[in-house]
Amino acid sequence: MTSATAEGYNGNYPGKGIGTPVGIAVLGKGTVGTEVLRLLSEFSSNLEHRIGGPIEVRGVAVSDVEKHKDAPEVQGLYLTGDARELVTRDDVDIVVELIGGIDYPRELVLEALKAGKSVVTANKALVAAHSAELADAANAAGVDLYYEAAVAAAIPVVGMLRRSLAGDQVQRISGIVNGTTNFILDAMASTGADYEEALAEATRLGYAEADPTADVEGHDAASKAAILASMGFHTRVTFDDVHCEGITKITADDIDAAKKSGHTIKLLAICERLVDDAGNTTGVNARVHPTLVPNEHPLASVDKSYNAIFVEAEAAGRLMFYGNGAGGAPTASAVLGDLVGAARNKVHGGRAPAENPYADYPVVSFEEVTTRYTINMTVNDRVGVLSDLTARFAKAGISLSAVRQEESGDEAHLIVVTHAAREQDLNAIVEQLSGHDDVLAVNSVIRLDS
Amino acid sequence: MTSATAEGYNGNYPGKGIGTPVGIAVLGKGTVGTEVLRLLSEFSSNLEHRIGGPIEVRGVAVSDVEKHKDAPEVQGLYLTGDARELVTRDDVDIVVELIGGIDYPRELVLEALKAGKSVVTANKALVAAHSAELADAANAAGVDLYYEAAVAAAIPVVGMLRRSLAGDQVQRISGIVNGTTNFILDAMASTGADYEEALAEATRLGYAEADPTADVEGHDAASKAAILASMGFHTRVTFDDVHCEGITKITADDIDAAKKSGHTIKLLAICERLVDDAGNTTGVNARVHPTLVPNEHPLASVDKSYNAIFVEAEAAGRLMFYGNGAGGAPTASAVLGDLVGAARNKVHGGRAPAENPYADYPVVSFEEVTTRYTINMTVNDRVGVLSDLTARFAKAGISLSAVRQEESGDEAHLIVVTHAAREQDLNAIVEQLSGHDDVLAVNSVIRLDS
Repeated sequence: MTSATAEGYNGNYPGKGIGTPVGIAVLGKGTVGTEVLRLLSEFSSNLEHRIGGPIEVRGVAVSDVEKHKDAPEVQGLYLTGDARELVTRDDVDIVVELIGGIDYPRELVLEALKAGKSVVTANKALVAAHSAELADAANAAGVDLYYEAAVAAAIPVVGMLRRSLAGDQVQRISGIVNGTTNFILDAMASTGADYEEALAEATRLGYAEADPTADVEGHDAASKAAILASMGFHTRVTFDDVHCEGITKITADDIDAAKKSGHTIKLLAICERLVDDAGNTTGVNARVHPTLVPNEHPLASVDKSYNAIFVEAEAAGRLMFYGNGAGGAPTASAVLGDLVGAARNKVHGGRAPAENPYADYPVVSFEEVTTRYTINMTVNDRVGVLSDLTARFAKAGISLSAVRQEESGDEAHLIVVTHAAREQDLNAIVEQLSGHDDVLAVNSVIRLDS
Repeated sequence: MTSATAEGYNGNYPGKGIGTPVGIAVLGKGTVGTEVLRLLSEFSSNLEHRIGGPIEVRGVAVSDVEKHKDAPEVQGLYLTGDARELVTRDDVDIVVELIGGIDYPRELVLEALKAGKSVVTANKALVAAHSAELADAANAAGVDLYYEAAVAAAIPVVGMLRRSLAGDQVQRISGIVNGTTNFILDAMASTGADYEEALAEATRLGYAEADPTADVEGHDAASKAAILASMGFHTRVTFDDVHCEGITKITADDIDAAKKSGHTIKLLAICERLVDDAGNTTGVNARVHPTLVPNEHPLASVDKSYNAIFVEAEAAGRLMFYGNGAGGAPTASAVLGDLVGAARNKVHGGRAPAENPYADYPVVSFEEVTTRYTINMTVNDRVGVLSDLTARFAKAGISLSAVRQEESGDEAHLIVVTHAAREQDLNAIVEQLSGHDDVLAVNSVIRLDS
């Protein structure tokens, strides 16, 4: 029954039997934890029917018991400051980790997995940084590790990659996976505000945290890109493998220029499987950067703090998923969906498909990837500049799909759109242009997705 | 290990162990069957990694062996005209039913389930007509019954309702689930063609079958609505429970009037959980009918033969899924996703969540449901007609949100948009208006979704 193999157990995950209660420990009681506890109570009868046995909350771990002990959703529950004790209790079957951060939840999750508890987490940073270690621990113990809520909250993209597309070959995943930055870029586009104004508005309305770094620098999106690439391509991609640029350098002028060319600037997470001419996969790449999206593309009209993810697969073609990518209730919905899955397995036996990096593709660095670019320069308005500058692109082997010149006094704005070019070739020509006598400034270099 | 309970087995579904081959029987070799066989071969190594053991095709059943025996995708495979023999073979673990129709595949699927085989089917008509019988047979044998491909092909809406939203409460499902009718309505809107012209174009391009009845009369969408409502609301809704109107009566004038009021006509499948003032569920309703969708609604811009489905859930909020809703490859993608799930359970043990109609809600008839309506009438162009007719709505307790009058010679078109009203009240007033001296014709009554 428990003969170990590469995947841990040799194919038998016995259940406890229908009607047996499933004990859970909830770690953390912030926005999501509070909503999870509330819904566990509101939906308890429905959940019991769907699982085959009742969920029983064995305890809620918080850092400050005094602060939370009067909250309505913990009345009648065991509230503790000792998370370590809680996660290894004999009567706990599933640990729900909603603390955030990396090091402390990592220790707790590993202890829980080693003790034979299944784990449900919404912690994208933890999963993106330590997926190998966590997956190994879950496999060794033959338990489930679920993290649908770690990417785009209630949009079930992790489950879709884990299960629905399990018989297909995913080629590309691209999407808006951070609501804060989408809110800011949408506000800039709709009001003409500059970045700082839009960020201030997002903070005022609660869409941005007091320290917005993880969102605006793209780190949050990069964690999600690592998870999506790992799950979608059956290989291992971690946070450190993801090229990451945020939105802090996007100006009102960039937004305006994008509009004029029929585009919208979005912060996209892009995961690609790279294929050679013979159709063989040569590696994968995952990256996060501001991207010009044509207005007719469905991602262009994803406004406010919504998330949307495109998945392209060989047989399925293009699929899009859209919804609330953040917030207490949508995140709790994803956590509870995972919890029902893990609890069903505890009752009926069986195990969910684990992250399975059998394909073991190399991660190709961003410098080797080809994308299209828009380069916005201020140049001297003299005869011959245009032909001189475009000749330099030709010499560098970068072909252009469009060139637009806009006059203003003695200066001119030159906007150049390239065909697909390698990042490193692009960097070389941008450096060359920056040193050119007639180029007064390279105002922006923004990638284009089409 | 096999003590029977309400759900069949008491919580233990043992696996055959990692590395054990999974034998499958494929019934039918039409467009989808051919693509499934092709992808099984192309993806075989990937599928083995994902399942934990190789898929081995034990046989392909077709009605005419002679006709198919030289097809490349069956070379080396056992091709038989005797599907009954194939589905009960000892070395078959999973039966993939891709025949179509109802009675014959029903017999085969029931025999397979009774013999302990898991079943994957793309057959919406079969599932929508006989879900109770099929689910009972699967539960009694403790095997899996999967049918992601039955609704919207590769768009994983069945799996999402089955698993991702298992911890939430679905309130409403609405969507474009038939590509043929969406193609026709989109062609009418973009070219001004009338229904017959657009249907002819759809037939010519392969979007409509030689006999388009099941699509254009809404039967195909009604089967899908029954499946979505059953899965989403955890209750039993069959094809016969679904109110169904097709698109054959939609005229170029209707499309034109819709445009003028900022709407697009779509054939929607709508599944609602009805709730009383105290928040208690009083029943469910499922229906298919042409619907005016505001142009700013994401469903309005779903063009060509694409499908898109909106799901509204209490915690998750609004989610939308978009993609190819038909075609050999997208349908095969869904079939293979299900097949990997069923095969994993054969290898590792466990069982997928079955359709589970524990909620047992009554199905509320369409006459009791409230929706908004647009009524387009030709009326005599004389003083007082407008106030007389609108007074009749007031008397019937139906409040109006907009009234628009358009002159043409002695006649006038009167377009009335109601607030939410009960279907039966609406039918009564339409009958009354039809008999009114000043109403020359009631041209159309189209429901409105917002």
